[in-house]
Amino acid sequence: MCYHLRMDLQKYLLERKKLVDTRLERLLPQNGTPPSLIHRAMRYSLMIGGKRIRPVLTLAACEAVGGDWRKALDAACAIELIHTYSLIHDDLPCMDNDDFRRGKPTSHKVFGEAAAVLAGDALLTFSFEIVAASKTIPAVQKPALVSLIARAAGSQGLIGGQVVDMESEGKKVSAKTVEYIHAHKTACLISAAIETGAMIGGAKVKELSSLKRYGRTVGLTFQIADDILDITGTKEKLGKGIGKDVAQKKATYPSVYGIERSRAILEEKTQEAVRSLGPFGAEAAPLREIAVLIARRDR
Amino acid sequence: MCYHLRMDLQKYLLERKKLVDTRLERLLPQNGTPPSLIHRAMRYSLMIGGKRIRPVLTLAACEAVGGDWRKALDAACAIELIHTYSLIHDDLPCMDNDDFRRGKPTSHKVFGEAAAVLAGDALLTFSFEIVAASKTIPAVQKPALVSLIARAAGSQGLIGGQVVDMESEGKKVSAKTVEYIHAHKTACLISAAIETGAMIGGAKVKELSSLKRYGRTVGLTFQIADDILDITGTKEKLGKGIGKDVAQKKATYPSVYGIERSRAILEEKTQEAVRSLGPFGAEAAPLREIAVLIARRDR
Repeated sequence: MCYHLRMDLQKYLLERKKLVDTRLERLLPQNGTPPSLIHRAMRYSLMIGGKRIRPVLTLAACEAVGGDWRKALDAACAIELIHTYSLIHDDLPCMDNDDFRRGKPTSHKVFGEAAAVLAGDALLTFSFEIVAASKTIPAVQKPALVSLIARAAGSQGLIGGQVVDMESEGKKVSAKTVEYIHAHKTACLISAAIETGAMIGGAKVKELSSLKRYGRTVGLTFQIADDILDITGTKEKLGKGIGKDVAQKKATYPSVYGIERSRAILEEKTQEAVRSLGPFGAEAAPLREIAVLIARRDR
Repeated sequence: MCYHLRMDLQKYLLERKKLVDTRLERLLPQNGTPPSLIHRAMRYSLMIGGKRIRPVLTLAACEAVGGDWRKALDAACAIELIHTYSLIHDDLPCMDNDDFRRGKPTSHKVFGEAAAVLAGDALLTFSFEIVAASKTIPAVQKPALVSLIARAAGSQGLIGGQVVDMESEGKKVSAKTVEYIHAHKTACLISAAIETGAMIGGAKVKELSSLKRYGRTVGLTFQIADDILDITGTKEKLGKGIGKDVAQKKATYPSVYGIERSRAILEEKTQEAVRSLGPFGAEAAPLREIAVLIARRDR
């Protein structure tokens, strides 16, 4: 890796990922629960790996405002379910037609297209059940959380970004369009992950507004870094095809700004994300370091 | 029609459908809201018609327990969104591959497959936002309602039924399997529609349990009647292909029991549904009549 993680962040991320994985394992219907096919398909895509960056951000945001991460764990898992559903549908033959994801065959390659559509639907549906039925999230917060997550995932959030992404393929697009795609397709859910944690942690209005700014910015840098990695990364590290954006003529930051300018924007935005945490002290250290890590990761 | 509707039920259904249509019209993002494609696709499938039987049942159940239907209108619309999303995904080429629905080209025929997948996703997502953000549903009821609807729509509800339906195609299936498919694919959401209305209406425990039994039974008769209509109906009335179940070797009541026995079961179950409304008086008259209508409809 070109960025040497401070050992404690590495340890922090690993521990948090483990908490999320363990909780996901318990939340999901067991393999063998009928109908077996759908539950195998749901588990397959969810447990195939992934950095769990969104749920880790939820927990970190909860702690940044002095909250107990345990209360935010279910909501963190719900966000990861939505992320996973979006990948399954995004990989479908009628969408990006990807055969590999995280180094493994995609859902429709393993279970067939129909089951992949349904597994995505089921993960999306279950995410709202998790939030609504959670025993740790205070009941009074649940309607606002369901609302927030649904908006971030909906037709004017993540799905909106996917639609414009799809419509932009093969076309020469403006910087404004690429920004719209990234802000919606990627940043909306990342931002919602952070806002969710902050709300459950009992954020004050000013804290919430700082964290929202952090979320939007870090969500954008996540996708810019992804665009750059699609050009400079290796298949082994990314676990998926390289150069697909160029091949599919996707709207990306490098396609609009070139790779050097994209790197500069990534750096600028990362600084901006860190700056938006100004009002916080040591309790937001993980969020600061994650912002830097997102920009400098190599996978 | 082989069943002459009492004029007041006909009027009742029409008025209720209008209330639902008007509210749906207001809830959905306007045409032109960016990204325009997704909102056109969402509106297209939702406003193409349909009897609105599920939302009408929500309102009727609310009133059967003495509640104000206005409080249940948003939740009724949310249920209709879930129904519509399930039809869009069910019609996809990788699923039932249907070109027509309610006499009009299906979503993927009009907007393409990718947009149809996303429009379904967006309707499903939006349904939870509607419940969570509703100004008429008491906040304290929202978590239980989101939970109930998500469970009914999820991998052990509607989606579970679709999975087994798909797996059973072309196979000789048992009566138990057909019952599983119908109970999950169709009855779960219909039953949830009724339970939702009853909960918002402030149903007592005993009332709720009667209405749950009514919901499960009426949900089943709805699908049995559908199976029979697929054989005896006309394309003009149904607005979709006839004999598709047989052509696709679908698991249906007639395929297991033959058509005469299916008709007898339909009649029995309809009586059972009406009987489960025993504890109620005149306030449940629409529910009683709707049960009969469901069994005797010709479209």
